[in-house]
Amino acid sequence: MVQQTAGSTSTRILCLSGGIGGAKLALGLYRILKPRELAVLSNTGDDFEHFGLYISPDLDTVMYTLAGENNIEQGWGRAGETWTFIEQMQRLGGATWFRLGDGDLATHLRRTELLGQGKSLGEVTAELCRHLGVEAELLPMSDDPVRTVVITADGRELMFQHYLVRELAEPVVREFRFVGADRAQPNPRLLSLLQNPDLQAIVICPSNPFVSIDPMLEVPGIRDALKACPAPIVAVSPIVGGQAIKGPLAKMLAEQQLPVNALTVAGCYQDLLSGFVLDTQDAELATALQIPVRVTNTVMHSLQDRENLAQTVLEFTRELRA
Amino acid sequence: MVQQTAGSTSTRILCLSGGIGGAKLALGLYRILKPRELAVLSNTGDDFEHFGLYISPDLDTVMYTLAGENNIEQGWGRAGETWTFIEQMQRLGGATWFRLGDGDLATHLRRTELLGQGKSLGEVTAELCRHLGVEAELLPMSDDPVRTVVITADGRELMFQHYLVRELAEPVVREFRFVGADRAQPNPRLLSLLQNPDLQAIVICPSNPFVSIDPMLEVPGIRDALKACPAPIVAVSPIVGGQAIKGPLAKMLAEQQLPVNALTVAGCYQDLLSGFVLDTQDAELATALQIPVRVTNTVMHSLQDRENLAQTVLEFTRELRA
Repeated sequence: MVQQTAGSTSTRILCLSGGIGGAKLALGLYRILKPRELAVLSNTGDDFEHFGLYISPDLDTVMYTLAGENNIEQGWGRAGETWTFIEQMQRLGGATWFRLGDGDLATHLRRTELLGQGKSLGEVTAELCRHLGVEAELLPMSDDPVRTVVITADGRELMFQHYLVRELAEPVVREFRFVGADRAQPNPRLLSLLQNPDLQAIVICPSNPFVSIDPMLEVPGIRDALKACPAPIVAVSPIVGGQAIKGPLAKMLAEQQLPVNALTVAGCYQDLLSGFVLDTQDAELATALQIPVRVTNTVMHSLQDRENLAQTVLEFTRELRA
Repeated sequence: MVQQTAGSTSTRILCLSGGIGGAKLALGLYRILKPRELAVLSNTGDDFEHFGLYISPDLDTVMYTLAGENNIEQGWGRAGETWTFIEQMQRLGGATWFRLGDGDLATHLRRTELLGQGKSLGEVTAELCRHLGVEAELLPMSDDPVRTVVITADGRELMFQHYLVRELAEPVVREFRFVGADRAQPNPRLLSLLQNPDLQAIVICPSNPFVSIDPMLEVPGIRDALKACPAPIVAVSPIVGGQAIKGPLAKMLAEQQLPVNALTVAGCYQDLLSGFVLDTQDAELATALQIPVRVTNTVMHSLQDRENLAQTVLEFTRELRA
């Protein structure tokens, strides 16, 4: 038996991902790399408690996607899901705005149980991933609670899932707060990973900069560690042709009187980026950016689209390293 | 519109029931009485916490049975149940010895949530019953925790569901303890119900005397209130032809060196009973009892069997009152 060298199993690519859109690119990267070469830093600002269960929507979306068990038709949740629980909860007069699937409930109950035994969110996530056969390293941005709160134009403070799911992202947003971020520690694995010379590149997935990526950057130490890392950082725009592929990002930009285009997204990350990936529909924006740009198809319908974009992004980071 | 008199909606029959066997007779009574004429006092000694959820097996069995939603083929749980949760929990390495159905989970999560809001178990049970259309009054024996512990011959102390479900009732039993019973208060509705002159009879269902009925009688005040009630108390034997219809009662009797027959069951309740109902298979035991006996078919396969037994028991109590 040949012993593996340390380098062969070290993380080579770190990506930062929110939920659905980010997870698509994470899956593309996972499929073209060796599984253990990928680490995914996941947003936990969306996490919340519901029926006493600890629910982590973005972690779960990435985990189910990498496990090949995400529900592609529905766009969220698990493949092969059943809905008996939520039907009965409706009969019993309980809350049904958050559509908990029967299989999904197992994740939430098991996570809540393991957290209750004193394990950290990172340890619990690793255990769940191991059972689902996910070999990439999935890292919650912090083991400490950080809660994204949406401040609405009419002055309400909404927990993120209340804003997004219960209120269907209808309220006009004024600003975002990341409650607890100032006291949170970065995921302990993250800092050592960013100091490892084997790390080749950092990819900011096409996720919402305000509510998926900013919560990570607000955890003290993460932004500085990313800036200090010698590996190039590239972001893929989640805005294509003036529209968000998924979710309320375009609406959020407009409500904050910001231009609804990829340049605004690049501006959100400007001090971090080594390069930016634009969709072919937005090729004309390339000259407005002061950093290297790669123009390619970023809209991921098929599995092949995911792998193609991952390949292009990795090639781009190799050129930036050269 | 004719206003109902108080008497027309008062409880006329109180039955004491454990799980499956008791619930069959409770259903028979429910179907031949006006729904609100029946109250069921339910054992909560089997209650336990699992995945942080408050689970009440006997309350749920009675509730689902009266709602017409018990799973008849399986003998426990809900009709039309799905099992996605427990399949996924198995994949995630969690405990699967207690087979939680997807729809059943809604009951446990909702109950746990309402208890967490400060409602009593009785209030929560009433709310769940209302949503499921159960019009009989279902009363947990106490709002306070009482936990049946099985002391095994090899000196272990097992929570009842651990003994019954996880260990398949295989350990030899030495004795039973009802932890917390000495500090528990009776269900507050029970005492006023026992003092109401409209109450016509009390029926001890064919349940396990040691682990279904004794926990109720061990709550301070319940036994005395039953004895003080002028309505006749009759019990239906859960042992027929030297065997238990369901569950580990025959095994428990043998392990305690007690005769495995209906007389032993009658002896458990002797200071309470006005009469006893024996199965036709056990007709020859009637002469050994010092109280009035009714011999009838007590084995309930069909819905008609349940109604017939309920009718016979009610006629017997009418004769005892005369």
